[in-house]
Amino acid sequence: MFAGKVLEAYGIPEADAELAAAALVHSDVLGIESHGLALLAKHGSYLVGIERGDINPRPNIRPLRETPSTAVLDADDGLGAVVASRAMHLAISKARSVGTGFVAVRNGRHFGAAAHYSLMATHEGMIGLAMCNAPGTQVAPTFGRAARLATNPVSVAAPTRSQPTFLLDMATSVVAAGRLSLAIRDQLPIPEGWLLDRDGHSSTNPHDFAAGGTLLPLGSRPELGGYKGYALSVTVDVLAGVLSGTGYGAMLTGRTSGIFLGAWQVEAFMALDEFRDLLDQALSALRDTPLLDGATHILTPGEREWRAAQERERDGIPLRHDAEADLMEVARRTGVQFPESIGVVA
Amino acid sequence: MFAGKVLEAYGIPEADAELAAAALVHSDVLGIESHGLALLAKHGSYLVGIERGDINPRPNIRPLRETPSTAVLDADDGLGAVVASRAMHLAISKARSVGTGFVAVRNGRHFGAAAHYSLMATHEGMIGLAMCNAPGTQVAPTFGRAARLATNPVSVAAPTRSQPTFLLDMATSVVAAGRLSLAIRDQLPIPEGWLLDRDGHSSTNPHDFAAGGTLLPLGSRPELGGYKGYALSVTVDVLAGVLSGTGYGAMLTGRTSGIFLGAWQVEAFMALDEFRDLLDQALSALRDTPLLDGATHILTPGEREWRAAQERERDGIPLRHDAEADLMEVARRTGVQFPESIGVVA
Repeated sequence: MFAGKVLEAYGIPEADAELAAAALVHSDVLGIESHGLALLAKHGSYLVGIERGDINPRPNIRPLRETPSTAVLDADDGLGAVVASRAMHLAISKARSVGTGFVAVRNGRHFGAAAHYSLMATHEGMIGLAMCNAPGTQVAPTFGRAARLATNPVSVAAPTRSQPTFLLDMATSVVAAGRLSLAIRDQLPIPEGWLLDRDGHSSTNPHDFAAGGTLLPLGSRPELGGYKGYALSVTVDVLAGVLSGTGYGAMLTGRTSGIFLGAWQVEAFMALDEFRDLLDQALSALRDTPLLDGATHILTPGEREWRAAQERERDGIPLRHDAEADLMEVARRTGVQFPESIGVVA
Repeated sequence: MFAGKVLEAYGIPEADAELAAAALVHSDVLGIESHGLALLAKHGSYLVGIERGDINPRPNIRPLRETPSTAVLDADDGLGAVVASRAMHLAISKARSVGTGFVAVRNGRHFGAAAHYSLMATHEGMIGLAMCNAPGTQVAPTFGRAARLATNPVSVAAPTRSQPTFLLDMATSVVAAGRLSLAIRDQLPIPEGWLLDRDGHSSTNPHDFAAGGTLLPLGSRPELGGYKGYALSVTVDVLAGVLSGTGYGAMLTGRTSGIFLGAWQVEAFMALDEFRDLLDQALSALRDTPLLDGATHILTPGEREWRAAQERERDGIPLRHDAEADLMEVARRTGVQFPESIGVVA
């Protein structure tokens, strides 16, 4: 596929390039465009990282510690999507053997959308967990006015029968930084409660983030439970950063990211068929809740991504014009043929 | 101890009564008074549950499925604090053998403070996880105006060296229902963003909750990320409710609660000493963040509970006058001698 060939042109071995390409395309399929093919194009992208030597295209990924249900892998500065895909396969294989598997990745890089890894487990009849930390330049602790944490995402996914696959996939900040970029692009103010400016005052100007501001943790102000989002963010730092041996957000620099992945085998707890049916019922009960005035429907967690995937697997990925132009430029630079239609990209 | 003797008077075997009493006293020690000795006294308490036959004082707790790293226990309607304590011991012992241990409890009852169980793991050099669901009568899904979820708490704890033990301990709603009871007691309005009334309108009147209102999930309104708290709450329903075979919140009635507990052995990932040092540094870096105007200090997650414990282990538990009167009434009813000073209670 296109993305894989581009990564190969940057020196990544074919099998690894295909793993990373699958992660990127899957993000676009899920509608998580900020973590899709756009990462091959824009500033700060994977390709720039390889060019600058921040990402090692041919890492020697090796286990540092291992037990029947756990492992720590040294990523050797390899592309996050490659290392995390291999780590999640290992977690799944451990869960198949002993019920659960958890793999921490030391010295990884940006792994793309956390949902890609948690969803891998659902195809094996398992519940998946994925999280990562990164340099702490985005989120301030409650009552602080300087960033010490990244947006530290968490994802959990579980298999259903006919309902949308259950998927929690969230930054532990009120919003991910990408939402500010969208507001800037569309020249719109942002709601009160997302951002503090560099002086620690509430701001509705998305430009204040790049000017030294900080995103608020999930919950926003303390009186609305912002200290909970702060604690969730630190939890990710503990598991993905400290336990992996990578380091906590405030000590990391550059593109370094610690990764924590896990899988619980459903059959270790109950019959998978029974689980799927019960989870389907749970999600139906949520969808059937009486609506607030003015609301049109209740989404189950993951339904938005599931519907996007159904549509895009059928029709292809609708690339924005600027993203398409960027990718065509990458195609020219690498000599990889650009697909004839955007549908073919997927 | 007093609490144990009271539970024994209600037909709970001595060893089980001591486990439950330890959970209650530990909650008070941590300053989580809503889940402490007060549960022996007030309406809806453990004792009322036993009297009415909702809680089985002599449960036959038995494994339904088991693998090297997992188990499902049938709680036989036993007191949550008893079953969860036994389940957490089992998770810890599995983690000691194979790196991680996760135990789901089917048909449990209220287990008290989630922090009690996650913290048990830290004494063994492990990271602990605890969550539970309950009948879905408190929290509405985003855009819904009827409750389908309980406040579904989550706790994660990790061992430090000299910094306060890391502790995330939160309801996945903006606030737990106990915060509304406190506002009613103190005759204070609550902040906008906690509660919807029975018609789905934002309310600052804490009485609107008992009148058919719903708590908002963490994040509050959708524009502040309330859909994330909703998804977190459903995640707890998936792991503690569905995976345990207990059932999801909207199908549960009475006092039934599904429980999910886990432990990751730190040494499976890195040297415990190294982990403690790195986590200490991480927490120090958070505390040293420059302060917002008007703020006096930044708490690390769990610092409040850790400081309460230091104080209360030294000075005893400061019982509120009404709680003390309730407990003295329990002492009279059961013939258990009430401790001479509140310090002795702990």
